[in-house]
Amino acid sequence: MSVPVVQGFKFSVAEAAIKAPGRKDCALIVSEVPAQCAGVFTRNKVIAAPLLVTKPRVAEGLCQAVLINSGNANACTGDAGLEVARTSGAEVARALSIDEKLVAVSSTGVIGVPLPVERLTAAIPTLCQGLADDKATAVAEAIMTTDSFSKTACRTIEVGGKNCQVVAIAKGAGMIHPNMATMLGFVMTDAAVVPELLQPVLTKAVDGSFNSITVDGDTSTNDMVLLLANGAAGNTAIQTGSREAELFAQAVSDVLLDLAKMIVQDGEGATKLVKVDLCGANSDVEAKIAARSVATSSLVKTAFFGEDANWGRIIAAVGYSGVDVDPNKIDIFFDDVQVVADGLTTGPEKEALATEVLKKPEFCVSIDPHLGGGKAYYYTSDLTYDYVKINADYRT
Amino acid sequence: MSVPVVQGFKFSVAEAAIKAPGRKDCALIVSEVPAQCAGVFTRNKVIAAPLLVTKPRVAEGLCQAVLINSGNANACTGDAGLEVARTSGAEVARALSIDEKLVAVSSTGVIGVPLPVERLTAAIPTLCQGLADDKATAVAEAIMTTDSFSKTACRTIEVGGKNCQVVAIAKGAGMIHPNMATMLGFVMTDAAVVPELLQPVLTKAVDGSFNSITVDGDTSTNDMVLLLANGAAGNTAIQTGSREAELFAQAVSDVLLDLAKMIVQDGEGATKLVKVDLCGANSDVEAKIAARSVATSSLVKTAFFGEDANWGRIIAAVGYSGVDVDPNKIDIFFDDVQVVADGLTTGPEKEALATEVLKKPEFCVSIDPHLGGGKAYYYTSDLTYDYVKINADYRT
Repeated sequence: MSVPVVQGFKFSVAEAAIKAPGRKDCALIVSEVPAQCAGVFTRNKVIAAPLLVTKPRVAEGLCQAVLINSGNANACTGDAGLEVARTSGAEVARALSIDEKLVAVSSTGVIGVPLPVERLTAAIPTLCQGLADDKATAVAEAIMTTDSFSKTACRTIEVGGKNCQVVAIAKGAGMIHPNMATMLGFVMTDAAVVPELLQPVLTKAVDGSFNSITVDGDTSTNDMVLLLANGAAGNTAIQTGSREAELFAQAVSDVLLDLAKMIVQDGEGATKLVKVDLCGANSDVEAKIAARSVATSSLVKTAFFGEDANWGRIIAAVGYSGVDVDPNKIDIFFDDVQVVADGLTTGPEKEALATEVLKKPEFCVSIDPHLGGGKAYYYTSDLTYDYVKINADYRT
Repeated sequence: MSVPVVQGFKFSVAEAAIKAPGRKDCALIVSEVPAQCAGVFTRNKVIAAPLLVTKPRVAEGLCQAVLINSGNANACTGDAGLEVARTSGAEVARALSIDEKLVAVSSTGVIGVPLPVERLTAAIPTLCQGLADDKATAVAEAIMTTDSFSKTACRTIEVGGKNCQVVAIAKGAGMIHPNMATMLGFVMTDAAVVPELLQPVLTKAVDGSFNSITVDGDTSTNDMVLLLANGAAGNTAIQTGSREAELFAQAVSDVLLDLAKMIVQDGEGATKLVKVDLCGANSDVEAKIAARSVATSSLVKTAFFGEDANWGRIIAAVGYSGVDVDPNKIDIFFDDVQVVADGLTTGPEKEALATEVLKKPEFCVSIDPHLGGGKAYYYTSDLTYDYVKINADYRT
């Protein structure tokens, strides 16, 4: 999908010979001026080198360039890997004549294999020369690994009579793997935003999107989402607590949810996109734990693949999630078909109707334990032969 | 496998027409005298009716008869299900002329479908008439659901010149399912044991066996393990803290570990039995969390199936387990082949050797984060096409 121009941002892609010949495998995003910036990074304790370099820089609140490579995660590569991340970032800074603290670096691909820094730095002049404002989609393509399609999303908001763009790109189709790891997301906006607004907006948006999806429950060493706001739209800066702040937060949440759903749809071997919607828990936290338990259950996910309205697996997954539930109060729906009322089956006719719902490529499982106002959702895929094939056969 | 006679216990099986015609689907275990008894039950919040009836009885410390049915879990069946569990237990008590408080009931099979109590009670006279001391194996067969083989184990210990038998049976091949749920285990010993020793011995043995295996990470509504000690061997009762208590605890741990490994081997679609051995964590608890994270990772399990020495997936699963690790200190071995030293690859030659290890039907992954003395293990299976097939196609 093509995306609109987001003012003051330029994009570029190149071949650094990290992936197979003929495939773009590095990309550069540059803002004309240093952009306000926020980031969310993997919670994995095993953290790849580019994140170790980028995290403290993003914490300073400004970023002007993002160098991304695919084909090699630069993870589990020790001090040498750190040096590679620093060197490649410094090369970008030199080429653009900016402070190297303003450069973020990001990698995705094989774990545990040295990233050939000379190939990456050799591509940097090409990247800098090729910068253009209409290449966001090309960047989305260059950062793909096992993705079967590139992922972009956008929203436009009006702030004080100015149109501001929120453009986002992402990659990912599961954790997925040492050889093909990671979820990366980059959100660019030309809106002017007060610095303190960015991180809470991004954190909330990630929580409701990338942190509410699962393909296989694995979290990569390289996951990174950056939000850059450069103010090129010329609006008065969006203030915390304002109506515009709400609009902006919604736009960021929307683009990330769009991308997150694409990632699940593109999940390895997936044939179904299923929303697990949990309302009525004791708290939002308990709702999320229970929803996650259902959304990550291999038994539930294989039942989705088998188009089996198998509510027993769902109620069992809620039960072993560890959150407080009374089994005699749980209701379960597939879309609008209720299959469980007060913990008991609603009968074979309803189950037959539910089976029809499961034949759809996209549907919702709603679970209500009737305990309180806590709610959360998860998007998940089905677990299929192709998931096993992709992940078992990758190296062979 | 046939098992030796365990004195003072008798066993029986029958057809109650709960499963398809021609298949034994109920069983009875009876001790000549009330046996000392301990139990471990599912931690799932959704608890099946037979557990609600049996748990408080076992807590009283005595049990003389266990009625088991397969084909229907009597779970998510509400008050009617509770009445079925109580009625069938009461019928056994009446037929044996014992107090109904001494009867345990246990079910495995479909969730959410009423258990036809009249069929079960109609089989009780046959069960009582057929009691014999050599039918433990027949019981192991009658309680099977998706199991492809019956599971029995035994040990003999000598206590004060008397030979005491510890005989155990189990069923299970994954959670597995509403239609085919549950792990059940029953340990019978003719050793005399002081009552206060039984529960800690059973709890520890279950922790190192059934709580240290995973096929799909799901915990059923019906999981139950009972340990019955009737003293028929005539030994002086084994005292807490004695050398005999150690022998006894080891024997119970051994039979349960035997059975637990059989359950993983029999895991749906499994072709590999893999021990994930984690030594060197900050604590045993952290070691278990990290081992579980590796053992339940779909990516790790598909790599086992693909015979891919994919240490990146393993190190990532340790990293996202949430426990404290320093990625630069982790060592990983496949059997005795070290593939990771201080978080870095040991090179392609070692990886080639490791690939040979993965071709074996049984091997060990050892992980050492070099942080402390905490250790734990998990037994797991690979994730295969057949796992998906069995769980997706079950109802179709």
